[in-house]
Amino acid sequence: MAEAALDAVRRELREFPAAVRELNVPLAVPYLDQPPTPLHFYRDWVCPNRPCIIRHALQHWPALQKWSLPYLRAAAGSTEVSVAVTPDGYADAVRGDRFVMPAERRLPLSCVLDVLEGRAQHPGVLYVQKQCSNLPTELPQLLSDLEPHVPWASEALGKMPDAVNFWLGEAAAVTSLHKDHYENLYCVVSGEKHFLLHPPSDRPFIPYGNKQVAVLTNCRPPEGPHTFLPLDSEMYTPATYQLTEEGSFKMVDEEAMEKVPWIPLDPLAPDLARYPSYSQARALRCTVRAGEMLYLPALWFHHVRQSHGCIAVNFWYDMEYDLKYSYFQLLDSLTKASGLA
Amino acid sequence: MAEAALDAVRRELREFPAAVRELNVPLAVPYLDQPPTPLHFYRDWVCPNRPCIIRHALQHWPALQKWSLPYLRAAAGSTEVSVAVTPDGYADAVRGDRFVMPAERRLPLSCVLDVLEGRAQHPGVLYVQKQCSNLPTELPQLLSDLEPHVPWASEALGKMPDAVNFWLGEAAAVTSLHKDHYENLYCVVSGEKHFLLHPPSDRPFIPYGNKQVAVLTNCRPPEGPHTFLPLDSEMYTPATYQLTEEGSFKMVDEEAMEKVPWIPLDPLAPDLARYPSYSQARALRCTVRAGEMLYLPALWFHHVRQSHGCIAVNFWYDMEYDLKYSYFQLLDSLTKASGLA
Repeated sequence: MAEAALDAVRRELREFPAAVRELNVPLAVPYLDQPPTPLHFYRDWVCPNRPCIIRHALQHWPALQKWSLPYLRAAAGSTEVSVAVTPDGYADAVRGDRFVMPAERRLPLSCVLDVLEGRAQHPGVLYVQKQCSNLPTELPQLLSDLEPHVPWASEALGKMPDAVNFWLGEAAAVTSLHKDHYENLYCVVSGEKHFLLHPPSDRPFIPYGNKQVAVLTNCRPPEGPHTFLPLDSEMYTPATYQLTEEGSFKMVDEEAMEKVPWIPLDPLAPDLARYPSYSQARALRCTVRAGEMLYLPALWFHHVRQSHGCIAVNFWYDMEYDLKYSYFQLLDSLTKASGLA
Repeated sequence: MAEAALDAVRRELREFPAAVRELNVPLAVPYLDQPPTPLHFYRDWVCPNRPCIIRHALQHWPALQKWSLPYLRAAAGSTEVSVAVTPDGYADAVRGDRFVMPAERRLPLSCVLDVLEGRAQHPGVLYVQKQCSNLPTELPQLLSDLEPHVPWASEALGKMPDAVNFWLGEAAAVTSLHKDHYENLYCVVSGEKHFLLHPPSDRPFIPYGNKQVAVLTNCRPPEGPHTFLPLDSEMYTPATYQLTEEGSFKMVDEEAMEKVPWIPLDPLAPDLARYPSYSQARALRCTVRAGEMLYLPALWFHHVRQSHGCIAVNFWYDMEYDLKYSYFQLLDSLTKASGLA
């Protein structure tokens, strides 16, 4: 009896992503040829939690004409910035049974530019990507090259951005699949960014932090057709890379921190033997080019790559913890409770 | 194993309504002292699916000064209108194992007014409530007394109303608990309406059309702690009242129609022995007075009573079949699949 009901629950959860796609997720990220009005932005994109790429939204930013690696050197070369350094380009990603955060170095921006321009070498992969409003705090001299917020978005959302972040890194620097509690307006100023996106409704197919299942199934082994995930579920011991004086990396556990849920899967090369459900998820891919702005809705899973030396700025607006949020939390907890992913 | 997982699923579903209430449902329906801007209406009320009562939204309607029973008689007394007639005031409600629709009579409006004013008698309870834009189609002479739509709502929603309905009935006329696929702006012109509301998130506690569970459990009796609902789930044979020449009512089955899901529960006197989960639902009650407009969001369950001779107009705007809709469908199907309500 319980098995039949649990099967029915899982069937509903597995059919949900396709139902959402049919009604609400386009086959490709649509383009807007100009910024929407605040009402249209809220009604057509934010409320239905749909991404879009907006053209001609940055053309009045001086940055769009001015920003290049030589310009950044001239304007801010001697300024120290926080740089994430990793052996393989992956900051905040799962490696084995660890969730590994990057080594963080303070370097003059000119050092990063030297590496990007091939004039110097540095161990590992560099990425200026500190996500705590590093543009106004670390590079205030660049602020006059752009607007401090996105006026039509601020009006639509009824708030100012929580953070304005500056991004500059090597081609090898990758952001692993994750989601944020922010409405994200991601503006590419030079080069291009490659996004791989999953709507929140794909949650049943994405392995992510199944702590509860681990607890639930702690006392009994997996069995029968209702096999639960094994105990090494998607909770990881946090660790940080440290860069030694010889230029090699070592992974140091953050012993004071609790285990962290993270997505262990690389969507570019998914381990489908281990995570077979992921084959039912459907990624949207898009490239955001210089002068374009991606509206990346809150809670969308995203994986990001970039062209070498790509320069970008993004605005994070705190999301509304509204009905959609509660529903996502339900989807998340039911995915775990039913042992799906 | 399956039992533990099913228990966990049910626990999540039962805890969901409180989680939504905490973040998104007020303890009482809030008042706005004036109509919101289109953006505010969409962002603060439509998108989060929150009801509110709007004051000073109708003050420019001549109807608000003019409409009374004598005025309606003078303006439209000889006009025939569709009238729902029921023995007990309940149109579209469960009676025993039937879903019973009202007898529909065409009567001059003056006949309805005679009954409302105590000048004449008519068997049963009368309610002018035909919900297919009966204001423009049956009473066009009243249209000049109000606006044909709600401009700030039409702009917010990006569409015109699908229907504008006129409501006039006796105190005994009740609308049983149900939900609509419409954003509803309900305007009371004279008298008052008493609404009892449940957010869509209360679905796990509201018995409603559990056909799937009946099918699932068809082959085996309820058992153990995971008792499923019995087979007489909330699917009802449709029937229509007929008014005989002697003035009595008989119920006639609509044999060509399939069984209908409906809520069998009277929220004013719930049968908690039969539907114990409903004790965990939390109704919001509000009275909408002359000159006030209730924004009743799509998919909210509502039960409506009124003062004798209350005159009202409502605007139905088709809802967006967006992410919220898909999530509600998931909640609905999981409630059924897990055998909850």
